[in-house]
Amino acid sequence: MYYSQSARLAIYAEGEFGKGHSKTAEGVLRYGQNPVVAVIDSTETGKSVEQITGITCQAPIVASVADALKFQPDALLLGTAWAEGHLPAEWKPDILFALRNGLDVISGLHDFLADDPDFVKCAAESKRQLFDVRRPPDQLPVGCGKAKDVPAFICLTVGSDGSVGKMTTSLEIDKVAKRRGFKSRFVATGQTGIMIDGQGIAIDRVIGDFMAGAAERLVLEVAYDNDFVFVEGQGSLIHPGWSGVTLGLLHGACPQAMILCHTATRTRVGKDKLPFAIPKLSLLIPIYESMTDFIRPAKVVAISLNTHGMSEQAAQNAVEEAARDTGLPATDPVRFGADCLFDAILAMRGR
Amino acid sequence: MYYSQSARLAIYAEGEFGKGHSKTAEGVLRYGQNPVVAVIDSTETGKSVEQITGITCQAPIVASVADALKFQPDALLLGTAWAEGHLPAEWKPDILFALRNGLDVISGLHDFLADDPDFVKCAAESKRQLFDVRRPPDQLPVGCGKAKDVPAFICLTVGSDGSVGKMTTSLEIDKVAKRRGFKSRFVATGQTGIMIDGQGIAIDRVIGDFMAGAAERLVLEVAYDNDFVFVEGQGSLIHPGWSGVTLGLLHGACPQAMILCHTATRTRVGKDKLPFAIPKLSLLIPIYESMTDFIRPAKVVAISLNTHGMSEQAAQNAVEEAARDTGLPATDPVRFGADCLFDAILAMRGR
Repeated sequence: MYYSQSARLAIYAEGEFGKGHSKTAEGVLRYGQNPVVAVIDSTETGKSVEQITGITCQAPIVASVADALKFQPDALLLGTAWAEGHLPAEWKPDILFALRNGLDVISGLHDFLADDPDFVKCAAESKRQLFDVRRPPDQLPVGCGKAKDVPAFICLTVGSDGSVGKMTTSLEIDKVAKRRGFKSRFVATGQTGIMIDGQGIAIDRVIGDFMAGAAERLVLEVAYDNDFVFVEGQGSLIHPGWSGVTLGLLHGACPQAMILCHTATRTRVGKDKLPFAIPKLSLLIPIYESMTDFIRPAKVVAISLNTHGMSEQAAQNAVEEAARDTGLPATDPVRFGADCLFDAILAMRGR
Repeated sequence: MYYSQSARLAIYAEGEFGKGHSKTAEGVLRYGQNPVVAVIDSTETGKSVEQITGITCQAPIVASVADALKFQPDALLLGTAWAEGHLPAEWKPDILFALRNGLDVISGLHDFLADDPDFVKCAAESKRQLFDVRRPPDQLPVGCGKAKDVPAFICLTVGSDGSVGKMTTSLEIDKVAKRRGFKSRFVATGQTGIMIDGQGIAIDRVIGDFMAGAAERLVLEVAYDNDFVFVEGQGSLIHPGWSGVTLGLLHGACPQAMILCHTATRTRVGKDKLPFAIPKLSLLIPIYESMTDFIRPAKVVAISLNTHGMSEQAAQNAVEEAARDTGLPATDPVRFGADCLFDAILAMRGR
C-alpha cells in the first residue's frame, strides 16, 4: 500500500491550494518526509507556498502537471478532498497524463484509484503504481477494549468539529515529547496522517463493525516500546455525520488523556455549514469524558486552538478565553508551541 | 439485492439452533414473512422449533441440507453468525450442495457469498442466486442531521449491549402502533431485520464516514407518509467494539424518543464475555440522552427487558426492578406485550 518516503512529490491542488479543501496538501507540506518539488494550482501561480500557507517550502506553484514535470517528480499526490471523498471527473485527464509521463499517483480519497479500470490499465501500460492510502487492511478485528491494558500512556486528540487541527496537534505534541527525551509515537488514523507517517489506517474508511478494532490494533502495535502514544483524532462527537467514527476511535484507542481541539473562529459544525452550534468548550468536555466512563475513564487535559488567519493579538485573546472557560492550559501549538499541552499530559500521567 | 418474500426457506443453523449465535434464525422464524419449511441442525433433530425457541412453527428440524430438500425449499438461509461475521469454512460444502440442488442462498454475514469465486461459479452453473443482504448500497451520503426535520415521530431502540432485543422491541412496538390505527414503519438496520422486512441497510457494514448518512437515508425514505418510524438499534454506546456504529445510527436517525433495551440476566457487555460491567440502567440513560443534546435532544421513555429463559416470577421481578431503578415504564415486549412502550412514546409525542 505504501510508497517510498524518498519519492519526490508533485502535489495536485488545482483550484484549491490554501483554501478550505487542501488540508492534505498542507499537511504533507508541513510535516511530510518526502521532498515536495512542485504544487499544482493554475489559480495561484506566481505566489509562493509560504505566502499562501505560511509553510516554509521552496517548491514552486505551477499551472499544470506538464509544468510540474520540469522539476522531476516521482509521484503525483492528490492534495485536496471533499467530505464524501469522491474523485472529481475533471481530475481524470491530469491523472492519466501523470501516469503516462512516468509518475506514480498517490490518493487518500474514498474513491480508490485502483477501482477505476482506466487508471489501472494506464498504470500497467506505463509501469507506474497507484497508491490508495485510505484502503484499510483486510481482516480487522472487532474492538474489545484491549488497549486499556498497554504500558504506554495514550493520548487522543478530540475536537469540536472536523478539520480543526487534531492531526497537527498530535504531531506537534509528539515532537515535544521526543525533544524532551521520551520514546514517543504518532499514530495516523486519516489519509493525510498516513501520508506523513508512512503507516496507519484511515479509520473513517473502515467498516463500522471494525473501526474500534482497527484503532486498537494501531495502538497495540506501538504501545509496548514507547512511553507515549499520540493518536490522531477524527471528526467530532457532535458532528452528525462523523460522530460514529470519533467514538469508534475513542473506544478503540482507550486514551488516558484527551486534548480538545477547536478552530477559534468556527461557530457551527461542518465547517460552519451545518445548522448545529458548537457549544462552549467547557460544555463539550463532559461529552467526551462521559463517553470514556464505562471503558477507560479519561480526562480532557488541555485545549489546542487553531487560530489560523487571526491576528497575533486576536489569537492570544482566543487562547486566554479558552483557558478561562475551561480552566485548562490552552495554546495554538503551531503559533505558540505545544509545550504546555505536553506538560498537561505529563501531569496527568504523574497522577 | 433482495429475494422474493414468497421463497420457501430452509434455515441453516448447524450445531447452533437455539444457542447464542442463532439470532438470525430465530428472528426470521418469529417475524419473517417467508414460509420456513425446515431448520437444519443435526444436533437438535427430533425436537420441535417450539420446544427449543418458544416460537410457534411447524417446520421440522432436520440433520442436513439433503434432508431439507424433501420439504421443497427455494432457498437456504444462513441462520447463525459470530461477532466478526465470517463464513466458517466447514459450511462451504453444504452451501455448494444447496446451490447444486436448486436452492438460492441467502446470507447476512460480513463475508459475502458473491466474493467467493467457488460460490459464484457454482451458482452460475446451477442458475441459482446468491443474496448478501448485508452488502450496503453504493454512493451513500455523509450524514448532516436532516432527519431531525421530518414530520414522522422517530423512535430508536438503544441498548446495554449487542443482542439484547433491540430489533424485537422495534418490531413489537411497530405492531402495536399499527393495531392502534397509526401509520407506522419498522426500519431495518441489521441483517436479520433486513431479512424480515425485505429492505433496509446493515449499518454495521457501512464504511465509517457514511454510517449516519445511511441511517438518515433510511429514515427520510419513510418519514413523510407515516406517523411513526421505529428504527432498529445496533450495538451499544458502552460496547468497546460497536459503540461507533451505535452513535452513527443515533445521529443519523435523529430520534425524539429512545427505548432502552437490556437482557435482564446479563452483567457485562459482549454477552458477558468482555471485562466491562453494564451499569444500572438509570446510569446508562444519561449516556444516551447526553449524546443527543447537540444534534436533536431525545429522551429514553421506557425500558424493554429481554427475560428469555427466566421464570415468570423472576421476569416480573426484573421488570419491576427496572421500572423502580429508572422511574420509567418497563416490560418484556415478547412475554408481557409492548403496549406500555408505545404508550410512553405516544405520551412523549404529545408533549
